[in-house]
Amino acid sequence: MSGNTFGVTFKVTTFGESHGTALGCVIDGCPGGLEIEVSDIEKELIRRRPGGVFGSRNEADKPEIVSGVFQGKTLGTPITIIIQNTNHDSSEYDSLKNIYRPGHADFGWDAKYGFRDYRGGGRSSGRETVSRVAAGAIAKKLLALYGISINAKSFSALSADEAHSLGDSSGGIIRCEAAGVRAGLGQPVFDKLDARLAAAILSIGGCKAIEFGAGFASAKMLGSENNDAPDIDGKITSNNCGGILGGISTGQPVVFNAAFKPTPSISLLQRALDINGNVKEIQIRGRHDTSIVQRAAPVVEAMTALVFVDFLLMSRNDKV
Amino acid sequence: MSGNTFGVTFKVTTFGESHGTALGCVIDGCPGGLEIEVSDIEKELIRRRPGGVFGSRNEADKPEIVSGVFQGKTLGTPITIIIQNTNHDSSEYDSLKNIYRPGHADFGWDAKYGFRDYRGGGRSSGRETVSRVAAGAIAKKLLALYGISINAKSFSALSADEAHSLGDSSGGIIRCEAAGVRAGLGQPVFDKLDARLAAAILSIGGCKAIEFGAGFASAKMLGSENNDAPDIDGKITSNNCGGILGGISTGQPVVFNAAFKPTPSISLLQRALDINGNVKEIQIRGRHDTSIVQRAAPVVEAMTALVFVDFLLMSRNDKV
Amino acid sequence: MSGNTFGVTFKVTTFGESHGTALGCVIDGCPGGLEIEVSDIEKELIRRRPGGVFGSRNEADKPEIVSGVFQGKTLGTPITIIIQNTNHDSSEYDSLKNIYRPGHADFGWDAKYGFRDYRGGGRSSGRETVSRVAAGAIAKKLLALYGISINAKSFSALSADEAHSLGDSSGGIIRCEAAGVRAGLGQPVFDKLDARLAAAILSIGGCKAIEFGAGFASAKMLGSENNDAPDIDGKITSNNCGGILGGISTGQPVVFNAAFKPTPSISLLQRALDINGNVKEIQIRGRHDTSIVQRAAPVVEAMTALVFVDFLLMSRNDKV
Amino acid sequence: MSGNTFGVTFKVTTFGESHGTALGCVIDGCPGGLEIEVSDIEKELIRRRPGGVFGSRNEADKPEIVSGVFQGKTLGTPITIIIQNTNHDSSEYDSLKNIYRPGHADFGWDAKYGFRDYRGGGRSSGRETVSRVAAGAIAKKLLALYGISINAKSFSALSADEAHSLGDSSGGIIRCEAAGVRAGLGQPVFDKLDARLAAAILSIGGCKAIEFGAGFASAKMLGSENNDAPDIDGKITSNNCGGILGGISTGQPVVFNAAFKPTPSISLLQRALDINGNVKEIQIRGRHDTSIVQRAAPVVEAMTALVFVDFLLMSRNDKV
Repeated sequence: MSGNTFGVTFKVTTFGESHGTALGCVIDGCPGGLEIEVSDIEKELIRRRPGGVFGSRNEADKPEIVSGVFQGKTLGTPITIIIQNTNHDSSEYDSLKNIYRPGHADFGWDAKYGFRDYRGGGRSSGRETVSRVAAGAIAKKLLALYGISINAKSFSALSADEAHSLGDSSGGIIRCEAAGVRAGLGQPVFDKLDARLAAAILSIGGCKAIEFGAGFASAKMLGSENNDAPDIDGKITSNNCGGILGGISTGQPVVFNAAFKPTPSISLLQRALDINGNVKEIQIRGRHDTSIVQRAAPVVEAMTALVFVDFLLMSRNDKV
Repeated sequence: MSGNTFGVTFKVTTFGESHGTALGCVIDGCPGGLEIEVSDIEKELIRRRPGGVFGSRNEADKPEIVSGVFQGKTLGTPITIIIQNTNHDSSEYDSLKNIYRPGHADFGWDAKYGFRDYRGGGRSSGRETVSRVAAGAIAKKLLALYGISINAKSFSALSADEAHSLGDSSGGIIRCEAAGVRAGLGQPVFDKLDARLAAAILSIGGCKAIEFGAGFASAKMLGSENNDAPDIDGKITSNNCGGILGGISTGQPVVFNAAFKPTPSISLLQRALDINGNVKEIQIRGRHDTSIVQRAAPVVEAMTALVFVDFLLMSRNDKV
Repeated sequence: MSGNTFGVTFKVTTFGESHGTALGCVIDGCPGGLEIEVSDIEKELIRRRPGGVFGSRNEADKPEIVSGVFQGKTLGTPITIIIQNTNHDSSEYDSLKNIYRPGHADFGWDAKYGFRDYRGGGRSSGRETVSRVAAGAIAKKLLALYGISINAKSFSALSADEAHSLGDSSGGIIRCEAAGVRAGLGQPVFDKLDARLAAAILSIGGCKAIEFGAGFASAKMLGSENNDAPDIDGKITSNNCGGILGGISTGQPVVFNAAFKPTPSISLLQRALDINGNVKEIQIRGRHDTSIVQRAAPVVEAMTALVFVDFLLMSRNDKV
Repeated sequence: MSGNTFGVTFKVTTFGESHGTALGCVIDGCPGGLEIEVSDIEKELIRRRPGGVFGSRNEADKPEIVSGVFQGKTLGTPITIIIQNTNHDSSEYDSLKNIYRPGHADFGWDAKYGFRDYRGGGRSSGRETVSRVAAGAIAKKLLALYGISINAKSFSALSADEAHSLGDSSGGIIRCEAAGVRAGLGQPVFDKLDARLAAAILSIGGCKAIEFGAGFASAKMLGSENNDAPDIDGKITSNNCGGILGGISTGQPVVFNAAFKPTPSISLLQRALDINGNVKEIQIRGRHDTSIVQRAAPVVEAMTALVFVDFLLMSRNDKV
């Protein structure tokens, strides 16, 4: 079964394998009349591209809007964006096709589907996020009309050059803040704003943890410390709740931290199992980021934007 | 719009307010032929009931199976479980009906729906979780047929008596492990096993953070440390990934920690805003847990069970 | 898998077997602030009750609102309505428990779930529609605020007394009209207004056909006859399209006819197969309607109301 | 909101406007390991292409599989198929851009979205069905493994040459039969097999009615005539129920008739309203089919295949 669609009202379906013909997304549920240009998408895709000399393959990432936009405005019909794969070299993966790379989905994938596209991780590649960023760009346009802006900052444990010189990789933290969020977005039970954000962010490859506001620290607090009570003038200055109470936005900025593990593909020698259960020594060549945290920041923003735009549209039906 | 249904194939819809007539759930998608007794549900509900002398109201929590079970087996039709509210006293909430209690959803709820059931938090009450535990009991029965068991342990920062003597409340951590999970459950993109678990657990009131395996610590690791590579005999002894890679189970135990904030209802004097924006001093009486962590453990198990049963059923369509 | 929920934004989940404890529904997605009284539901349920002396069992059909309504208004939380089964006598079904009654779902049900509640048809009973009518009553309240009213008329091939005297049953036609529908409801592709109405009406037990506007007759028309073109004054007087073009309402009344087959339970002697594949002669006693058409009219209205309220809420997101 | 996705487990999202860059579909939920070739899709698309000399524009309709298939087999990931628009001439529509063509969705569309792609009907064009036929081709491959085949025949009221000589158009009937369907597919309440088929077929542009088995005729029958009872040898020879009872397949062939209205675009002079409410006389040139019935037959098959494949996959979870 499925799992390639995100959202309830603003539904984004992504598709594409790392070394296939193309990747892309179909957005169903974007209201009609939103002004969209290709450059809105391009400028987000550029932020996601590998920055340094040691990064993974460098794709042009030229988005094409195939449907849903006419005369510069959305029609209310599905918006399809396609990004061609042009710079993929699958030959380096031939030697790994019978290997379950440590830290990768290879083994679970074979157990699940009995078959996988071993070239660059297939659908499990970080390249899949290009579709998310494209969809997020449309979401951001709509959010901007409501004064909502989203900003993510990355903190890598090691610099790219340090990690590269070790032949190793490094993890990091992304801190994201949504500003301009009015009170009342989210839902009180299963679709809590934080629950949906958590799903959105943990659906990004390599993310292993998330915390809202004081997060793990709140587990050690007293209620009197943790409650964001007003001061004597009625101002609420603390934000331990991260802008969310009972799954609903409070009107304060929505703030969370997400932890990303180090890229599993490293050039150091590693042991790995092959498909017959034998232990092999492998060295992963290909082109890989030493840390994905920096490139993941626009992906975190995109997923956050998808969550907010969805709740924004849903909220139109909160009241009779 | 909605948000009171959880799950894709095994769909659980919960309903009920804290001080209304009853709470309950409808489970749609449970296969036919599963053996179910009322006692299966009761024994889970008992684990969720307030334990000590200082806890919140003590309800009998007698579940009634209203539909979907015939001659001790599920019919394949919706299973409805109802738990009556019998021991609710709403009078203590009259003084709070115009107050936005710190740390609660009151303000956001009014902003959202323009109207709320102020008695005991209404739908935002922890009492809502009784429906989740009832549904989780059915899920656990099905998982047991596949050898999957789920165990959550709670660690409260302060003991109930310590917090009570302070007139305050305390947060804590719940550590949950799912054992017996075969490789191949989960989905590779948006419906990653960890993404869905994160949504499930963060949808529990008071939860502010979750981490899988090494979690936040993995952000500081090198790839060579974090990768769960086999030893020379092919055995994988570390579990930094928490049993999940690329959103798919690896066959190792699935392990996560969740952080719960201290109960926002405390008997200490607090400042709060009222519905007119004025600052008031309030003292919350009612009956409240000094820490919800202990009672949240069976809820965490229930939600985890709902996620696994859903992926288990989905996995039947992984292959032609 | 499921199938007991209807609707996208205004989601109705029904539950209950004919001879179980109770039936009912959970409505998730009703906006907050809608005024509701139990009598709104009761007056619709009364229209659905058996009218004559030869009808099926006569239930009190007292609805109880268990959640979602506070101080006479919807909270935005799930509205649960329960109708107890009080007047069921299962003994007459014992002799039929190993028989696949002609015209009933018995055989297919066993093939599907391997197991069934043979008492009064279980979940496949016409009694299941009591939940739909209850939900429809809420939908009608909301539609009334937008000036939409729904009216269904039934035309039975034989009168109840004629069919009864023959020991037989009779089919009939229901004609339904939705008045006050503004242009622009529905969706252009899979969720066409007529497609959703067709699914809604054909989901009522015994319905075998539906046609919109000129329906089957339009298959024999020329385009110049069938097009609803304006007259010289700009007025459109024909309604061959039944108020729907390209899946979207035109502003004219939405009109359709639905065909219902005769009740399969008849007191005449019939041949039937038993669960071992043997041919048996059976005579169905129990209490059965000689025609369901009259009682189905409020059910048709209810399902039509659910479709319109869903599209009404969806339409709030048509434009930026 | 959305409406461009069809299906529960085998989800098909279609996209594209008649005169945009391309049309296509994304199939999410196809199990891994299904053998697929481009020719499987091509041969279905060929059946949908305009046949005669008077038909609408003739497109090459070359499908491209962009994702989800590797080494000739489905990966379990989204299958994306794209069909470029190459032979579209939008100039003929300029004169109609301010006209609401009789029998078309133009007026409702403007009321809904406030804006439309007037070129060839945009998303409301019959061209949209090319995506459905492409998706249906994959569904048919999977159904064939289970022995299910689907066959639709069209009966046009007038021949293409007769209608063309009149400057008019003609409606017709499509009769469809699904053979090899085992008992037990479908769901007993809202997702009845016939309800889902009705939605599927009425979602095809121009379809105005559907009937299963005896359909409208059953409304005039007695129960004793309409029930498909076995003969003395246990054989059931009639099929008034059209292979479906209580929403579940009986094991007999599933049979239905669908009525299609005449193509609304005719070359005869017609009156129409313009966007300012004025009456105009128009003559529609462009390239239009005089009857869509023949070309709709493969679309009916495709939609029927999508319904069956969905229920087939769902049925894997009917039993524990």
